[in-house]
Amino acid sequence: MKKWLALTDVSVYPKLVELAGRPFDLRPREALNEDRMRRYCCSAAGIDLLYATQRVNDEVLACLQDLADQGQLVEQFRLMRRGAIMNRIEGFPSEERQVLHTASRDFFTQHPAEPVATELAARELAKLKSFLEDLETGRLTNVQGQPFDTMIQVGIGGSDLGPRSVYEALRAFGQQGRKVYFISNVDPDDAAAVLRRVNLATTLVNVVSKSGTTLETLTNETLIRKALATRGLNPSLHCVAVTGEGSPMDNPERYLRSFYMFDSIGGRYSATSMVGAVMLGFALGSKQVQEFLEGASCMDAIAEEDELGRNLPLLLAMLGVWNHSFLGYPTVAVLPYSQALHRFTAHLQQCDMESNGKSVTRQGEPVVLKTGPIIWGEPGTNGQHAFYQLLHQGTEIVPVEFIGFRYSQYGEDLESDGSTSQQKLLANLLAQSLAMAMGQENENPNRKFPGNRPNLILLADRLTPHVMGALLSLYEAKIIFQGFCWNINSFDQEGVQLGKVLAGRILSLMAEKQKDVDKPFSPEKGLLEMTKLN
Amino acid sequence: MKKWLALTDVSVYPKLVELAGRPFDLRPREALNEDRMRRYCCSAAGIDLLYATQRVNDEVLACLQDLADQGQLVEQFRLMRRGAIMNRIEGFPSEERQVLHTASRDFFTQHPAEPVATELAARELAKLKSFLEDLETGRLTNVQGQPFDTMIQVGIGGSDLGPRSVYEALRAFGQQGRKVYFISNVDPDDAAAVLRRVNLATTLVNVVSKSGTTLETLTNETLIRKALATRGLNPSLHCVAVTGEGSPMDNPERYLRSFYMFDSIGGRYSATSMVGAVMLGFALGSKQVQEFLEGASCMDAIAEEDELGRNLPLLLAMLGVWNHSFLGYPTVAVLPYSQALHRFTAHLQQCDMESNGKSVTRQGEPVVLKTGPIIWGEPGTNGQHAFYQLLHQGTEIVPVEFIGFRYSQYGEDLESDGSTSQQKLLANLLAQSLAMAMGQENENPNRKFPGNRPNLILLADRLTPHVMGALLSLYEAKIIFQGFCWNINSFDQEGVQLGKVLAGRILSLMAEKQKDVDKPFSPEKGLLEMTKLN
Repeated sequence: MKKWLALTDVSVYPKLVELAGRPFDLRPREALNEDRMRRYCCSAAGIDLLYATQRVNDEVLACLQDLADQGQLVEQFRLMRRGAIMNRIEGFPSEERQVLHTASRDFFTQHPAEPVATELAARELAKLKSFLEDLETGRLTNVQGQPFDTMIQVGIGGSDLGPRSVYEALRAFGQQGRKVYFISNVDPDDAAAVLRRVNLATTLVNVVSKSGTTLETLTNETLIRKALATRGLNPSLHCVAVTGEGSPMDNPERYLRSFYMFDSIGGRYSATSMVGAVMLGFALGSKQVQEFLEGASCMDAIAEEDELGRNLPLLLAMLGVWNHSFLGYPTVAVLPYSQALHRFTAHLQQCDMESNGKSVTRQGEPVVLKTGPIIWGEPGTNGQHAFYQLLHQGTEIVPVEFIGFRYSQYGEDLESDGSTSQQKLLANLLAQSLAMAMGQENENPNRKFPGNRPNLILLADRLTPHVMGALLSLYEAKIIFQGFCWNINSFDQEGVQLGKVLAGRILSLMAEKQKDVDKPFSPEKGLLEMTKLN
Repeated sequence: MKKWLALTDVSVYPKLVELAGRPFDLRPREALNEDRMRRYCCSAAGIDLLYATQRVNDEVLACLQDLADQGQLVEQFRLMRRGAIMNRIEGFPSEERQVLHTASRDFFTQHPAEPVATELAARELAKLKSFLEDLETGRLTNVQGQPFDTMIQVGIGGSDLGPRSVYEALRAFGQQGRKVYFISNVDPDDAAAVLRRVNLATTLVNVVSKSGTTLETLTNETLIRKALATRGLNPSLHCVAVTGEGSPMDNPERYLRSFYMFDSIGGRYSATSMVGAVMLGFALGSKQVQEFLEGASCMDAIAEEDELGRNLPLLLAMLGVWNHSFLGYPTVAVLPYSQALHRFTAHLQQCDMESNGKSVTRQGEPVVLKTGPIIWGEPGTNGQHAFYQLLHQGTEIVPVEFIGFRYSQYGEDLESDGSTSQQKLLANLLAQSLAMAMGQENENPNRKFPGNRPNLILLADRLTPHVMGALLSLYEAKIIFQGFCWNINSFDQEGVQLGKVLAGRILSLMAEKQKDVDKPFSPEKGLLEMTKLN
C-alpha cells in the first residue's frame, strides 16, 4: 500500500507554522467587512458554511489547500469509497478492512462508487421496506392481532448514539402513534425506567450488535426477554436483530426478522446502515428514511471535489486542523441552535474522538503532533446561560462550530416584543459568533471581552431528513479527512480493549470473593476491596 | 475587605511547580499498592473518594494542604456561609452581593451559619409545604376539580440545568402519576414538542426567573399562556412563579402562587432553593425534598473542616488544582456510572465553567495562570463505547472523575454470565480507573496503553435524595474553593452581556429590514445578510 504523507511531511507545513504565529486579527471593526463575509462562505447540499469569523486569510486558505493536495486527502477519500483497505496499520496486526459506510446510501446514481457493497446494502433496505409494509398493512402484528406501536432499540456506542441523535433530530416527522425508546447502559436502572413506561404486548425490541457479543446489549436483551416472558409473551415474536451475518445473534428461531450489517462499516459510522434505518423506518416511515439517505449521499459526492471552496467537508476539516494543529486549541465545541439536535454533539463526540483519539501513525510510529481534539457542547440558547461565560472570558480558548436553521421544524411560533422565537434563536446565534470574534473593550476589566475566539456557522433552511443526512455525512467526512491529514487510522478502536480485560478480571474477583480471600494482592483486588461491597 | 492570596502568591507555589516536574508514576505494578489504596481514601456524608489513581504522593498532598492553608480557602468558605460580600471585584463596579445558597438548606442545626437568610428560606419552604398539601388534599385543583398531575418547568440556565439534573437523578423516587416536563430553549420547537405531549387542563406551569425578565423564559411563558387560553383555560389558574420579590413576575393576579428567590443565590447555585424545590416537591413530595436538602447541608458542614483528609470538597478541589494549574490539563471529564445522572455533567458544566471561566482577579487584574477548566462527560458504560478511545490512547490527557454506586435505584436486576448488571457496571468503572492509571505495554504499538492518566472515584451506596444533595453540594464547594484558590470572583457572569447586546441589535435589524436597506455596513448587518433570511 502506498504511504501517504502526514501533516508534518508536506512541504507547506513550515509555512503554516509560520503563519500561525500571526493569525488574522478579528477584532478591528474593519476586519469583518462585507467582502470578507461574502467570500468566506461555502454552500453544498443545502448547507451554508460561514467562516469569516475564523482566524484565516487568503494566504492561510491557499496553504490549507496545498496541505490537502499534497496529503492527497481527497484522493484517499475516493479510494475509501471505492473499497480500498483503509482500516489498517502497516506492518502490524490490525483490522485490515474496507471502510464503506458511504455505500449504505449510494443508491441515487447509476454508478455507485463500490457496486458490490451498495448491492448488499440495497438488499437489506429492500428487506426493511417489506418489513415496514408488513407492519403497516397488518400482515405483521402481535399474537393478538394488535399493531406494534412501540420499538425499543437496544444497542450501545455506535448502535445507540448515532441512531438516537438522528431520531431525536427528526421526531417532528414521526408517524402518528409510533413511539421509540432506547436502552443502552448496562446500568439496570436504564432498562427498568424504560420497561416501566412501555406496553410490552405491542412492543418490538430491536437488538443491535454487529458482533452479536456486546456485553451491555446482550445483558439488556436478556433482561427484556425475561420481562416479556414474565408477561406471558413469546420473546421471539417481539425481537428483531441487526447483526453481522453468521453472528451468534443471526438466529431466526430467536428473532422475528434479522437485518445485516457488514464488517466494512464501523459502529460510529453506521447510522445510515440498518443500525439506524430499522428504527428510523419504524418511527418515520420509508419515505423519510429515503430522504435521509439521499441527503447523506449528496454530501458524500461533494466530498470528492478537489477544491476547498467546493468541498464543504474538506473545508470544515482543514479549518479544524488550522485551529487544532497550528493554533493549538485542544477542544472543539459544537453548539446547535436547535433543541432537536440536543444529542447530535454526543454522537460527534463518539464519531470524532473514537476515530481520531490515536497516538500512532498508519505505519505504527508514534505521532509527532497532537491528533484528534476533545469534542463537547450543548444546544444554544441554553448554553448561553451555562458555559458561554468561559467561551467569552475564560482562559481556555475554544473554537466553536455553530449550527442553525432559518425556519423551525413544527412551524408553531409566536411573535413577542416584535420578533418570533425562531428569529430570537437565530439572532442569538449570530450575536454569539460576532461577540466571540470581535470582543469588546471596557474600562472595567471584568467587563472586557478579549475577542479573537474563532468560530463558524453551519446554516440550513430547516432540519429535515435530507438536511440531517447531509449534516451527518458532512461531519463523518470532516473527521475522516482530518484522520488522513494526521496520517492515523480513524477506523479502529484498540483503546477500548484494556478496560474490557480488566473488567473481566474484576468480575471474576467479585464472583470468587467469598472463597478466595487469601489471593495475593493485585491493584484490581485492592481497588475492589476499597469499594467495601457486601 | 481583606485581600486574599492567589495561588501564585503563596510561598508553597514554587515547590508545587517543582514537584509537578516529576509527578507520581502510576504505571509500575507496585505503584498502586495496598497501603496507598487504603490511605488515599476520604469519606464524608455517605460518599467515598478514592484517589490512589491521582498523580500525587504524600509530599504533594502536604503542599496542597499548605496551599489551602496559606490561601485561607476554608476561612473564606466560612465567611461566605456567614454572609460576607464575596461576589465583588475590588475597585470596580460589580454585583457586591452575599453568596448564600448554603442558607437555603441550613435547617438541620440549632445554629444556622446565617440565621437571617435561613429564616427567609424557611419561610419559602413553609409556603411550598402548604402548596404541596393543598395539591395533595385536593384543596387546590383545576377549575373542574381535577387534580394537577403534570408540571412544566419553564426556566433556562440555572433555573433549568440544576433542577432538571436532580429531577432526572431522582425520578425513581417520584410520586405515582405525577409527571414533569421542562422547556428552556427559545427554540420554538422545544415548547411545541412538550405542548404536544401534555394535557394542559391538568398541568401546572412553573415559571422560574429571578429577574422576571429573562428573554427565553418570558417568551416561552407567553407561548404557553396562549396555548392555555386557546384551550379555554385561564392561565392565571395554571401558572406558578419562582422569582425575586418585587420583580415584574411577582404579581398575584397572574400567578396561582409565588415563591421567592434571593439576590444572594446565583442561578447556578440555586437547585436547593425554590428554583429546584417547587418542582422537586411536586414530583417527589416534601419528605424527599427534605432529605435532599439535608444531604446538601451535611456536605456544607464538612466543607468547613481545615484538614484535606477530613474535608472532601476541599480535597476534590485541590486535586483538581494540581491537575489543571500544575500538570496543565485543560479539561475535566465527569463520568457517572449511573444513567440517572445523565444530566449531572451538564449541570456541572454550567456551575463550574460559569463560575470559574474568568480572566481577572478579585482586584480586577489580569490573571497570571489559567483559571477554570472545560468540564464535559457522558455516563458510563455508554462513554466506554464512545469517546474512551481518546481517554486511553489520545494525545490530549483528560483527568477523569468517576461517580459510582454500590446498589441500583430500582433494585430490578438480573444475573447473567455469573454477575448482575449492577456488578458489571461497577466492575467496568473500577477497570477503567485502573486501565487509565496503569496503562499496558504491547509489542504492537497500536495496542499500547501509555497510562499515567489521572482519575478518581466518587462512590456511594445508592443514589438517594440524601446522596444527591451531598453530591450537588460537594461539587458546588469544590468549584468555590478553586475560585478562591485562583483568586477570582466565582459568583458573577459578566461574560454573558455582550452577546445579549448584539442579539438585541440583530433583532432590531431583522425588524427594520424591509424599510432600511441602505443602512451603512456593520458586521451585524453583514452577517444577517449572509443568512439570506426571506
